[in-house]
Amino acid sequence: MSNLPNRIEIREVGPRDGLQSEDPVAVADRIAFVDGLAAAGLTDIEAASFVSPKAVPSMAGGGEVMAGIDRRGDVRWWGLVPNLRGAQGALDAGVDAMTVTISACGVYNEKNIRRTIPESIDGIADIVGAAGDRPVDVVVSCVFGSPYTGDEPTASVPELLAQLRDVGVRRFTLADTTGMATPARVERVLQRTGVDVGLHLHDTRGTALVNAWTALGLGVTRFDTAAGGLGGSPFAQGAGGNLATEDLVHLCDDAGIETGVDLTALVGIARGLEALVGHAVPGRIATHGPSR
Amino acid sequence: MSNLPNRIEIREVGPRDGLQSEDPVAVADRIAFVDGLAAAGLTDIEAASFVSPKAVPSMAGGGEVMAGIDRRGDVRWWGLVPNLRGAQGALDAGVDAMTVTISACGVYNEKNIRRTIPESIDGIADIVGAAGDRPVDVVVSCVFGSPYTGDEPTASVPELLAQLRDVGVRRFTLADTTGMATPARVERVLQRTGVDVGLHLHDTRGTALVNAWTALGLGVTRFDTAAGGLGGSPFAQGAGGNLATEDLVHLCDDAGIETGVDLTALVGIARGLEALVGHAVPGRIATHGPSR
Repeated sequence: MSNLPNRIEIREVGPRDGLQSEDPVAVADRIAFVDGLAAAGLTDIEAASFVSPKAVPSMAGGGEVMAGIDRRGDVRWWGLVPNLRGAQGALDAGVDAMTVTISACGVYNEKNIRRTIPESIDGIADIVGAAGDRPVDVVVSCVFGSPYTGDEPTASVPELLAQLRDVGVRRFTLADTTGMATPARVERVLQRTGVDVGLHLHDTRGTALVNAWTALGLGVTRFDTAAGGLGGSPFAQGAGGNLATEDLVHLCDDAGIETGVDLTALVGIARGLEALVGHAVPGRIATHGPSR
Repeated sequence: MSNLPNRIEIREVGPRDGLQSEDPVAVADRIAFVDGLAAAGLTDIEAASFVSPKAVPSMAGGGEVMAGIDRRGDVRWWGLVPNLRGAQGALDAGVDAMTVTISACGVYNEKNIRRTIPESIDGIADIVGAAGDRPVDVVVSCVFGSPYTGDEPTASVPELLAQLRDVGVRRFTLADTTGMATPARVERVLQRTGVDVGLHLHDTRGTALVNAWTALGLGVTRFDTAAGGLGGSPFAQGAGGNLATEDLVHLCDDAGIETGVDLTALVGIARGLEALVGHAVPGRIATHGPSR
């Protein structure tokens, strides 16, 4: 395990990617969830989304969430923004940093964001311009495979990142949107992109943890995760939540990799999510507790 | 991925470890399950158990299973035996090879096998004597941690293997009985035992696949798995089935590691298990299909 990093940076996306596909949760409960995560030691939290409430009803009230949380100075507060208008909303709400998505698969991009990839790049350029010195992280979906075009996006990722760098993007996260990544694919993609990227993994095929571990061994130190493994549609055919924050922290604790997160506090939060979302959550450490 | 083996040997334990904790399945259905596994390319199959039917009712009829299956010559047929009497039953039924269990944790051994570890070693010596030139594989439970004594067994494994070698045992499988293994623990144990061992992993904490992958990278080439991830009590609190055969084969196929198994045929079998056992199975590739 000698190649493992001493420390990783976890961005908790449960309040955003985790809750966006659930039935709407009250703003007060979302605030309490976020405050709990910060108290458990998470220092990067995607607390809200600034998309149209018509498009994603469960993310309505992002500004209220940002206004209601305990704005601890030891946390960097992220908001997801779809376009310049969303970015202005996020900046008005006081986010420290913004995420914006684009897909490595053109078909997926047009179906889900309703833009061509060049149109998405133009929109990201506008957001970077509005952000000033605040970080903008571009989350690239379908990097490890697309439900529409199979393996094809994998090869085009470096060129897409280069185009995004040309419009000022300095930070990237590679997303396994539909759980098609494997250790071999993770290695293949990272050989092309370098390891100064974040990974955003979904557990559709039970591979999120092994993919994260492979990336750790190759030198990746940034991961998006969601408490309880929230996200996707975990109980539609058992499908696709995010890598569970507590499952990654458990493995890191065991291997001596610092995360800054208090696992006991985090497991307590993950166990409370069932009441919040109305169904069991897929995270395994939440269910069974750590090995010791 | 350059350190990965070209080929691994999978021992399918679904018909035994997978079904033993389920409600009894008819012998004819168990035979069809086993025949299907052989047709899908599995070449080591633990088809039956020769324990007391009073102790494990769902494993009654091991001899009938062995007599009813298509005894293909390209498969090595394994039977689990608890003692000399069981070994004689297994040999009468025509097994090619036998598994016998002992625990690295004395407390666990006494609670589950009702013997001290020295008593178990004596019993194993008798079985090795009866086996003649047939392989006897000792499956050592709780190697990566015990629910009773925590991490303690991890340190004592090499000494236990040495004692077993002294009574003629030539083949070992290290079992993560209650899902306490992690990549760091797998590496720590294998540094002490060497990699000429099999691994028998349970997915209680969602770590079976990452543990298998870690072991592969360290040179382990033998794995026990169960179709569909059967085993343990997968739906008592989401607990502890075996590493799913198809989940491991999927990862190996993707990485160019030969298993000899036809993944499509295996996924078909895994998908049929829900009807056999009366509940959904935890294997993820069975649910979602391979990445491509």
